[in-house]
Amino acid sequence: MKSKKFAVILAGSGVYDGSEIHEATLALYAISKNGGEYELFAPNTDQYHVINHLTGEEMNEKRNVLVEAARIARGNIKDVKEFDAANYDALLLPGGFGVAKNLCTFAFKGPDCDVNADVETAVKAMHAAEKPIGALCIAPALIAKILGTVEVTIGQDAGTAEAISSLGATHVNTTHGEIVFDKENKIVTTPCYMLDATIAQIGEGAENVVKTIMAL
Amino acid sequence: MKSKKFAVILAGSGVYDGSEIHEATLALYAISKNGGEYELFAPNTDQYHVINHLTGEEMNEKRNVLVEAARIARGNIKDVKEFDAANYDALLLPGGFGVAKNLCTFAFKGPDCDVNADVETAVKAMHAAEKPIGALCIAPALIAKILGTVEVTIGQDAGTAEAISSLGATHVNTTHGEIVFDKENKIVTTPCYMLDATIAQIGEGAENVVKTIMAL
Repeated sequence: MKSKKFAVILAGSGVYDGSEIHEATLALYAISKNGGEYELFAPNTDQYHVINHLTGEEMNEKRNVLVEAARIARGNIKDVKEFDAANYDALLLPGGFGVAKNLCTFAFKGPDCDVNADVETAVKAMHAAEKPIGALCIAPALIAKILGTVEVTIGQDAGTAEAISSLGATHVNTTHGEIVFDKENKIVTTPCYMLDATIAQIGEGAENVVKTIMAL
Repeated sequence: MKSKKFAVILAGSGVYDGSEIHEATLALYAISKNGGEYELFAPNTDQYHVINHLTGEEMNEKRNVLVEAARIARGNIKDVKEFDAANYDALLLPGGFGVAKNLCTFAFKGPDCDVNADVETAVKAMHAAEKPIGALCIAPALIAKILGTVEVTIGQDAGTAEAISSLGATHVNTTHGEIVFDKENKIVTTPCYMLDATIAQIGEGAENVVKTIMAL
């Protein structure tokens, strides 16, 4: 199979207010290990808030999504405003609350959430170009919000599944490492930490999404 | 082989002022995938400084090493003061500048650096108990500072290798994914991002360290 170039959109760095670090890292690892390449993007906006990951409490601080995502990217990351679908074979979104707080407001408004305009443009451009999109954990809810009638999984959480269905999408229950592959829309999703998972199971899910996209 | 329980000491979250995120995540992944368990620790101290990972410049902020390391740990992490060598089969230190800025001051003072007292106690206790210690990237320099006459690798950087030799340790040059295994002292080291590596190569190095320790 031909080597594929992925664009990966991050939402900060840390499960409670940014991108889930294990999901993001293991997605990049799966791309690299299977012979692909990647470039990273994030919105140049303030985080919705900053959470102390030791206590779970909000901190009286401001942090920028792009600047914090650069921690996962080792500095090699661009503003998602600069994303051009013509340059990539696939798009991938790891999960973490940042997806539902910074890329959209699903964590607060559910199906009535707002979506970052540049992220919406990126997802729509890849879909219009019939290029595959992978999404982990809660990120499939964002894909459902943007694209509507797609088939996705976020695992087994009934409330989130219902919110996804109300957007016109179809939710399919899955367990650790399993994917849902919507062939018509080229959308590949897996639950990751939407289930109570080990980090080995996160790696399995991320790799299954990446390998499915690589094989297209 | 019997399942091993690792203690992993983090130094923050982000290559330039904390733990290198890919190295930390892929070390945890290697432990989990190979049937081991882990618990995470970090010092409850301020970071030496905060670096904007997008620009490389220092930020006018204070951040706590334990609180930021909790981002990699998903909140499940303890103060390294609470570490008890009796509870673990092995110790592992991922790299990143935080090791040389927050766990010790090797980044600024080289072989004359100071070492966090609790980290020093933890390393010495594991060594005294003849339990294996793994160290990635720049972390082998910290092990050399604490233990002296050990055999380690940080890859091929001549200046760092010389500083390590001046501590009484032996440095062995290595390339991507290779390990140095000091059998007498049960120290396993690999260069990771001390070389210009891909994330797949980081995974390979971390897994080689973990598997060598698992096989003991």
